[in-house]
Amino acid sequence: MSRLDSFIRRLEAQRACLNRAAELIAGLDGIVLELGLGNGRTYDHLRELFQGPDVRWRDIYVCERQVAAHPDCVPPADRLLLGDLREALPRVSSRFAGKVALAHLDVGTGDAAANQALAAELLPLVVPLLCPGGVMASDPVMDCPELQPLPLPDGVAEGRYHLYRWRAV
Amino acid sequence: MSRLDSFIRRLEAQRACLNRAAELIAGLDGIVLELGLGNGRTYDHLRELFQGPDVRWRDIYVCERQVAAHPDCVPPADRLLLGDLREALPRVSSRFAGKVALAHLDVGTGDAAANQALAAELLPLVVPLLCPGGVMASDPVMDCPELQPLPLPDGVAEGRYHLYRWRAV
Repeated sequence: MSRLDSFIRRLEAQRACLNRAAELIAGLDGIVLELGLGNGRTYDHLRELFQGPDVRWRDIYVCERQVAAHPDCVPPADRLLLGDLREALPRVSSRFAGKVALAHLDVGTGDAAANQALAAELLPLVVPLLCPGGVMASDPVMDCPELQPLPLPDGVAEGRYHLYRWRAV
Repeated sequence: MSRLDSFIRRLEAQRACLNRAAELIAGLDGIVLELGLGNGRTYDHLRELFQGPDVRWRDIYVCERQVAAHPDCVPPADRLLLGDLREALPRVSSRFAGKVALAHLDVGTGDAAANQALAAELLPLVVPLLCPGGVMASDPVMDCPELQPLPLPDGVAEGRYHLYRWRAV
């Protein structure tokens, strides 16, 4: 499998997981939190899932250190949380506690160990923001008792992407 | 269609066209020329198509201004043509004239007008390198009489990627 093949599979897995997450939170109130904007492609997909013409409208907040997305994919200023994730999330911890229906984290540095280390740092910052039944979709493993791993959509191989649901422990 | 959707479709189209190109040149002698290395994903795919264990081995030459690919995807120094495409191609024009079985150009700047302008500049530099029956796969349109547009693989929409075959005019 070439790097082109595996990149396509990863993007397909990401999209399938986001689409599934949208179904999973259909019955929940809550906002969407995109952890990292990057080029804005997944933010654009989230807009389609949660702000399209025939869907339930949700606020989408985006954390990003430095906006470098396509101009069409820059969130409104009042939905943008500027700064390193480890600094930006604590700033909204009281405001967003228990109000996030879907959080999405795609670290995507290509350095698996660094991604995993960042995920571990972010866990205690993100998990308290999820509402009961809220969903976390992520590239790295998010390993904590409050996050129950969910089955992946058809065609997504184990470990290629991750889906979790918040549960009381 | 979100930008994530369209990006996935573009990558799938690119892969399908490269795979088809490999079939199309199966009966030809000649080298492969990758015009732009980028992150090295398509170069890695070309290696799989032309330097894998069960395939006909071909030299792959890569033009790139500045190598910034994944370390696993950096071509050997003697297969790397450093410099701007408009300067690197003339340097190999006599060496490679009529010897390229497949040329692949993915400008991929996201700026369609700039991509098209570069493609027009590159046409007179690339076309003379193709061997009779040689194939050009490209992101931008390559509009010249010597390049006959070929049908795209199943599932690839018209204009999403391009395949051409060299013909005498």
